[in-house]
Amino acid sequence: MDAAEFRRRGKEMVDYVADYLENIEKRQVYPDVEPGYLRSLIPEEAPLEAESYEDVVKDIERVIMPGVTHWHSPYFYAYFPTAHSFPAMLADMLCGAIGCIGFSWAASPACTELETVMLDWLGKMLKLPEDFLAGTEGSGGGVIQGTASEATLIALLAARSKIVKLIQTDHPDRSETDIISKLVAYSSDQFCATLGTTPSCAFDCITELGPICNAEKIWMHIDAAYAGSAFICPEFRPLLNGIEFADSFNFNPHKWLLVNFDCSAMWVKKRSDIIGAFKIEPLYLKHDHQESGNQSHWQIPLGRRFRSLKMWFVFRMYGLKGLQAYIRKHVGLAKEFESLVKADQRFEISADVVLGLVCFRLKGSNELNEILLKRINSARKIHLVPCQLAGKFVLRFAVCARTTESRHVREAWSHISHLASELLQELRH
Amino acid sequence: MDAAEFRRRGKEMVDYVADYLENIEKRQVYPDVEPGYLRSLIPEEAPLEAESYEDVVKDIERVIMPGVTHWHSPYFYAYFPTAHSFPAMLADMLCGAIGCIGFSWAASPACTELETVMLDWLGKMLKLPEDFLAGTEGSGGGVIQGTASEATLIALLAARSKIVKLIQTDHPDRSETDIISKLVAYSSDQFCATLGTTPSCAFDCITELGPICNAEKIWMHIDAAYAGSAFICPEFRPLLNGIEFADSFNFNPHKWLLVNFDCSAMWVKKRSDIIGAFKIEPLYLKHDHQESGNQSHWQIPLGRRFRSLKMWFVFRMYGLKGLQAYIRKHVGLAKEFESLVKADQRFEISADVVLGLVCFRLKGSNELNEILLKRINSARKIHLVPCQLAGKFVLRFAVCARTTESRHVREAWSHISHLASELLQELRH
Repeated sequence: MDAAEFRRRGKEMVDYVADYLENIEKRQVYPDVEPGYLRSLIPEEAPLEAESYEDVVKDIERVIMPGVTHWHSPYFYAYFPTAHSFPAMLADMLCGAIGCIGFSWAASPACTELETVMLDWLGKMLKLPEDFLAGTEGSGGGVIQGTASEATLIALLAARSKIVKLIQTDHPDRSETDIISKLVAYSSDQFCATLGTTPSCAFDCITELGPICNAEKIWMHIDAAYAGSAFICPEFRPLLNGIEFADSFNFNPHKWLLVNFDCSAMWVKKRSDIIGAFKIEPLYLKHDHQESGNQSHWQIPLGRRFRSLKMWFVFRMYGLKGLQAYIRKHVGLAKEFESLVKADQRFEISADVVLGLVCFRLKGSNELNEILLKRINSARKIHLVPCQLAGKFVLRFAVCARTTESRHVREAWSHISHLASELLQELRH
Repeated sequence: MDAAEFRRRGKEMVDYVADYLENIEKRQVYPDVEPGYLRSLIPEEAPLEAESYEDVVKDIERVIMPGVTHWHSPYFYAYFPTAHSFPAMLADMLCGAIGCIGFSWAASPACTELETVMLDWLGKMLKLPEDFLAGTEGSGGGVIQGTASEATLIALLAARSKIVKLIQTDHPDRSETDIISKLVAYSSDQFCATLGTTPSCAFDCITELGPICNAEKIWMHIDAAYAGSAFICPEFRPLLNGIEFADSFNFNPHKWLLVNFDCSAMWVKKRSDIIGAFKIEPLYLKHDHQESGNQSHWQIPLGRRFRSLKMWFVFRMYGLKGLQAYIRKHVGLAKEFESLVKADQRFEISADVVLGLVCFRLKGSNELNEILLKRINSARKIHLVPCQLAGKFVLRFAVCARTTESRHVREAWSHISHLASELLQELRH
């Protein structure tokens, strides 16, 4: 395929994508396929000779779509949202075309620099303390990681490297292995200090944890993977109070800030802490501007895509006000669902509804709720997943899709309520 | 931006991408900007109000392109190639639109299943031993990692978890911490067993290392990040002999197999070894088909994009023969460059030219070669990076871009040769 054919096929793909997203609610949100369905639909080996593009495209509806869980359907209420927007998709096309690997400043200055500035923009939207920003002379700064898991691992490794150096300053005779074997990481059952846990969107009290960590020289990493996006709204920003005690912080714009996966934003107060834990410099990566932001020293992978383009497109095309409106709309929909649940005496709310997640259940046994969830998901009209809260089996209703509106939420509730009525009636007989 | 506007803007972006790539050789391969150039070109904060798409697009040429190192220019000969093809870009558009997060089978069956089958396809192209394939009943299989660094880390963690279990079977009283503190990882100065090192594309003798590892119950991980793609050609497949001794293997289709970054292919002989090291199962990830390929148990991140679509599009639209032809063309271009160097008595070849990399230098001091490289890169006509081989400063000429032709290679050589003449002449005066 040459550039001329790409012009044609690319435009067809743009139309396919637009069609898919305009009509997504007509598709069944959760697929009917059984494990192993796909292998039987395609050959056992790659073709020897090239196939035509038509042949490949035909197989999207035949092979792929029957096995897709439609995360961007307004009937998808499972897990947490994954971000999705047209500006981000356009930026990703550009990212693919440039196709640079930004493992050093020289490998693509624009890639390295836009990332630093975008993380400053985002840090300012969140009103992070000045220490976390790179600015022109700051000692902190941000980096894009693939996922919150990677950010947490990086924070752990940086914390370990920092404390080892600190101890060795006072005790130069102690070996690294010896020190490491005595280190302790504190966490709750959700790990590290978390703002907005996955099961119930609960918040650790970082204004209490923070001073203890600082006094005891414990590295404090805060993970707000889902909830972090909401902190761009003044009314939710108090949830981030205490951030000034943290050494590192991350949240995922790829969850709730309209920047397609992957884009986990991580900030540290001292870049030197994190760079010290990872720096590698073989000759083939050396260049004249060695000290200019080398984000591969902040991560496990060496390679990195030009992911900040997505942030740049999204932040500019929505504007801070547009992003805030988006967050508020989702929280409003969750509140609407909450009030529908509350108005039904058969149900109870299982955790405070702070943002876009509602944890709820039928008053009654875990088994009853397990059956209800099974029926909801088997009906394939909407898709939910459960969680466990203090021994109770709970249903999670997460507002996920960009296009979810009040009518979808009300429809989802009336569907759930109807299935509950059926179930309770059967049990009475 | 709604779907209707995306139709229009998406098509404009397709044209922009096609224009960029059709005319890439007219752009200066390496940028002129100085560190910090970008910050001064854009505002210090995200806009409060949404901006128009026109405003964003205008800034691509004003802000981004002046700072791009054009990895896909046929004058780019630095590092190693990063893969880039139109079919992969089309697949990535689809991946972005579906926007699923494949952390479990249920989260998107097609995403999980296509990945398993594509890794089987690719494993067969490489003629990997049957044990590495998943098939319908195999105990091995493949997974897409982001980068070779991640694959290596995963292999290390899996190896550690396996040996701890093995030792605890014989000595149930020994603690994990105690065992771990005594474990040893063997590596060369390029780490693990490597086929095609970055500096010079050198090959470890895995037919010698393998039996020792097997006899001593040492986990053998083989990294062929760059070279691996070449093993799809029968004439290069012998370089992979000894793979039968390995426990895990990875290479990067995102380097040399036309699948855009990120796509590092990793195989293990025993899926259970690797899954055992990572398995996490909170309730919100449980589903009815729990045992059906859960690739997030094979990696650090929980989230994962639908990356196998890129492989599927590329393998089908090139066919095995097309991919082989592509590899052979690049090797041929490297051989051509090698013979040009060899014909010039002032130069020497510094390492065997096995695949698409030529390591060469002026006969003379390291300083002389450093000056030559500086002049080559300052002239901005082509872009190279150096390496260090046995104390010598060496220039690396890696055939990188998909569109590199013989004329580009000859032009590059005549440019290098001309700069060398100038330099040597100056030194004589």
